[in-house]
Amino acid sequence: MYRTKTCGALRLTDLNQAVTLAGWVQKARKFGGMIFVDLRDRYGITQVVFNQDVNSGLCDQAAKLGREWVVQVKGTVAERSNKNPNLPTGEIEIIATELTTLNPSDTPPFTIEEDTDGGDDLRMKYRYLDLRRTSVRSNLELRHRMAFAVRSYLNERNFMEVETPVLVGSTPEGARDFIVPSRMNPGEFYALPQSPQLFKQLLMVSGFDRYFQIVKCYRDEDLRADRQPEFTQIDCEMSFVEQEDILNIFEGLTQYLFKAIKGIDIPTFPRLPYADAMRLYGSDKPDTRFGMQFIEIKDLTTGKGFGVFDSAGYVGMICAEGCASYTRKQLDELTDYVKRPQIGAKGLVYVRYDADGTLKSSVDKFYSPQDLQGWIDRAKAQPGDLLLILCGEVEKTQKQLSELRLEMGARLGLRNKNQFNCLWVTDFPLLEYDEELKRYFAKHHPFTSPKPEDIPLLESRPGDVRANAYDMVINGVEVGGGSIRIYNSELQQKMFSVLGFSEEQAQAQFGFLMNAFKYGAPPHGGIAFGLDRLVSLFAGLDSIRDCIAFPKNNSGRDVMFDAPSTVSQEQLDELHLKITLPL
Amino acid sequence: MYRTKTCGALRLTDLNQAVTLAGWVQKARKFGGMIFVDLRDRYGITQVVFNQDVNSGLCDQAAKLGREWVVQVKGTVAERSNKNPNLPTGEIEIIATELTTLNPSDTPPFTIEEDTDGGDDLRMKYRYLDLRRTSVRSNLELRHRMAFAVRSYLNERNFMEVETPVLVGSTPEGARDFIVPSRMNPGEFYALPQSPQLFKQLLMVSGFDRYFQIVKCYRDEDLRADRQPEFTQIDCEMSFVEQEDILNIFEGLTQYLFKAIKGIDIPTFPRLPYADAMRLYGSDKPDTRFGMQFIEIKDLTTGKGFGVFDSAGYVGMICAEGCASYTRKQLDELTDYVKRPQIGAKGLVYVRYDADGTLKSSVDKFYSPQDLQGWIDRAKAQPGDLLLILCGEVEKTQKQLSELRLEMGARLGLRNKNQFNCLWVTDFPLLEYDEELKRYFAKHHPFTSPKPEDIPLLESRPGDVRANAYDMVINGVEVGGGSIRIYNSELQQKMFSVLGFSEEQAQAQFGFLMNAFKYGAPPHGGIAFGLDRLVSLFAGLDSIRDCIAFPKNNSGRDVMFDAPSTVSQEQLDELHLKITLPL
Repeated sequence: MYRTKTCGALRLTDLNQAVTLAGWVQKARKFGGMIFVDLRDRYGITQVVFNQDVNSGLCDQAAKLGREWVVQVKGTVAERSNKNPNLPTGEIEIIATELTTLNPSDTPPFTIEEDTDGGDDLRMKYRYLDLRRTSVRSNLELRHRMAFAVRSYLNERNFMEVETPVLVGSTPEGARDFIVPSRMNPGEFYALPQSPQLFKQLLMVSGFDRYFQIVKCYRDEDLRADRQPEFTQIDCEMSFVEQEDILNIFEGLTQYLFKAIKGIDIPTFPRLPYADAMRLYGSDKPDTRFGMQFIEIKDLTTGKGFGVFDSAGYVGMICAEGCASYTRKQLDELTDYVKRPQIGAKGLVYVRYDADGTLKSSVDKFYSPQDLQGWIDRAKAQPGDLLLILCGEVEKTQKQLSELRLEMGARLGLRNKNQFNCLWVTDFPLLEYDEELKRYFAKHHPFTSPKPEDIPLLESRPGDVRANAYDMVINGVEVGGGSIRIYNSELQQKMFSVLGFSEEQAQAQFGFLMNAFKYGAPPHGGIAFGLDRLVSLFAGLDSIRDCIAFPKNNSGRDVMFDAPSTVSQEQLDELHLKITLPL
Repeated sequence: MYRTKTCGALRLTDLNQAVTLAGWVQKARKFGGMIFVDLRDRYGITQVVFNQDVNSGLCDQAAKLGREWVVQVKGTVAERSNKNPNLPTGEIEIIATELTTLNPSDTPPFTIEEDTDGGDDLRMKYRYLDLRRTSVRSNLELRHRMAFAVRSYLNERNFMEVETPVLVGSTPEGARDFIVPSRMNPGEFYALPQSPQLFKQLLMVSGFDRYFQIVKCYRDEDLRADRQPEFTQIDCEMSFVEQEDILNIFEGLTQYLFKAIKGIDIPTFPRLPYADAMRLYGSDKPDTRFGMQFIEIKDLTTGKGFGVFDSAGYVGMICAEGCASYTRKQLDELTDYVKRPQIGAKGLVYVRYDADGTLKSSVDKFYSPQDLQGWIDRAKAQPGDLLLILCGEVEKTQKQLSELRLEMGARLGLRNKNQFNCLWVTDFPLLEYDEELKRYFAKHHPFTSPKPEDIPLLESRPGDVRANAYDMVINGVEVGGGSIRIYNSELQQKMFSVLGFSEEQAQAQFGFLMNAFKYGAPPHGGIAFGLDRLVSLFAGLDSIRDCIAFPKNNSGRDVMFDAPSTVSQEQLDELHLKITLPL
């Protein structure tokens, strides 16, 4: 028994108790004939006092303590004269009677404090020390609590957590699969699953009815800013359900999480059809913490001699409240922002609706005050507002305007990390047209079911067919998505034919599931949440990396372990593999 | 909404309710002008009745239903005239008013019944149909409930579940690692972890204090009867603890599981030092559901002219109660049993203590009745008992006698699957001598700490040093094991020197953790349980395979998916790999 209490436990009510604590030396400072040591563990910090006058030997011992030493202290709880209201233990201190060094510590390469002096790279190399910092550890604690709450909610609703295999078969479409050579089956490979999609659908065929799993998935792809080669999903599937049933259960889960973890009541989620999301926000994952919806003015702008607008398929704007006072410099900044190659707009048109009611725009040459007033009216703008207008090809321009809207939201402080706006985006298109390959692809996967009322369009206007597919979006982040699956083989055949699969191709790629479906597949559907993303959102983090204990960097490397690494020739020989890299 | 109730929900109290059910046709039978359909889902079976006289059209429709069709039925709850006391729903039936076929089914390749006609191979190939069988699905339900109970227990005790990485670095000792080529780092490989040992110790260095994880681990090795290349551990680690703390917490976990899952009260676990386990049972995982402990009689048997015993290092026996009446044939069977190559005894000596008090043995030539009486006395045998004696080199013979003991326990019905005897085996030897390599190896791993009182023996008699290592054994199965780790670098150095590691070798193999330990490692220790094995034990299964949704066979193959398999040349090229198998 190394301790009787943790460093976060003691209060004034414990006065005069004899206690034993153990932990790390956060800091030690001398003050007169006293040494004060802040002793830290996962649960908190407790001040320990050594008094030269009372026990000079012990005090000398304490004087030798360095940062991050691990010590055990015996002593008595006393009231502090100089209380610290910022610490739960700040009203007491321990008058030490015994001190044991359990382990000394070298000077750590950076300070273990919130405001650490360690740079990103150094902290990742010594991740085990970075994890000592309270904020980093709290992210992991939050992750634990969220995963536990998810399991509790689903368990209570008859969901079974089933572990699906990690060493699976490589599939023809699995171009981004990690593969694993098998020693026992030389020349053959397992793959790591990109998701348990196939298995969860099989479990529905098996009659498991309600499945979930918090499960690692793997994707060997170039890592953009916020991706990891291994990531964690809350993967769910239900039988005998329609879209409405899934939305209700998982809206409930999200509300439960917000309440249990953050004490926040989230109202019923608005539902926004994909088409409206694109029209109003130019995004299928709109940040709805603020309005600033798109206003189309193509009809109001055409035929006035401004060729740029006239030739554009789309002219749309947002109204930035109270921004009429923006300076030339600020407007130029915004123009530069939308012209950045990542966004790619040609230019930015503005209309200032000054507080005195006058209108000023960058296109005054072409549009009369009356014309501009028409735009103002449509935007329901108020004096003091600023209209920002982009034009061009519809989809591209909506995407650019969406970026501009997010930027303005940020500039105006409308994207508060402590405010949470949840919604469902529904009615996604079933198919996406690939201009290059001149054919349709399934937007989600080929087992996603079309809306029954759109089935007649499958052959005539496939691009207009809406799917029983949905995404959960919170603060502009897609935290989850799923669909109701096709379980009827006739409809599946039709779907494959629309996708241009021959029967052989369909059989080769999806034959396995199609065969399973022959033996009585129930209607079913599901959803998967990105746990990393959900935790980041709850923690207000900018990167999912901060809620992962041992993340990899952008090159997929673990810099702490220096993995991946080379392996021995013997190991390769045993696997009958040879590396063909040029020397 | 496909259903208002499940097939396991309705009771007499629901009489006259209008309900909608959905599920699979378990069977349909005609009886007079009626058709009775057993409708099955995960929750139960409900009888549905179609009456020719009432609705002949509906009855004709029902007549076409085949086994495993998925249907939706609307109807009214009625009392059954012919009640089935074996079904929770056996007092009611549904008088059908509407029938919808949601999906027909081909005739399944085997019957979906407890007593299925499908062989092992066929059921594994169609595992998704095998999983429909109630007993198979209940094993998975049990697994879910156990995992959830483990998480609840640990969560309540401040354990944090932390996900450790799956794509890790390959270590020099990782000969049985699965390796994963990295596309982004050509020529380099990740490894899949055989356990998160390193990470959990790092988390202790990080001050996480109490960690757990229910986690997949991977080992690429020849699969013996009951191994899987991927298996699941309940992995735990604690800081500022001694062995006693760990045993208490996890004895509590096990008692909690037995109570919560099976309603069984398990008393305080006996603790059996390794040396006693070997002496009394010849095994470090004794089945203590029955006694039949070993009795040594070397001293009583020597010098009577029986060379076989005289030259043996060990003569030991077990007393099989009430087996004096064993026939010649039965005794021959036992002799054959111990002489099987897997056991390898040279022969079996017996002494029958007949009910009338007379003694008869297979070594009457060498031992007088008085001699035999001495053996009987030491065994405290009663008339009617049978002594079974093996001899030879100590460890080998104890192992053989252990097998014989288990066999006799089974023959005597002493290994009841519904009885659970738990114990701790403690004080394992720290080191094991390898006769071939003429050096000591760490029995667990080189971070396992020696008992403080045995440290002085480390250099003089390393084989006698006992470790702070422990296994939890239930019914002869090792369900978990762990140790208190070395956290002190001086002791660690000494340990490496005993193991014959040069400083460079130690640095190369374990340098990473040793470096981390320099920055203030707390005293810590842990344990890991095999979840698959624990669930099998609770379910009374003979193989862990039966509690895994999609297991692999003895060659590490998933016969359902036919994985592992070959991959495309493009994929290998992208990874800069070539297969060097002879054509």
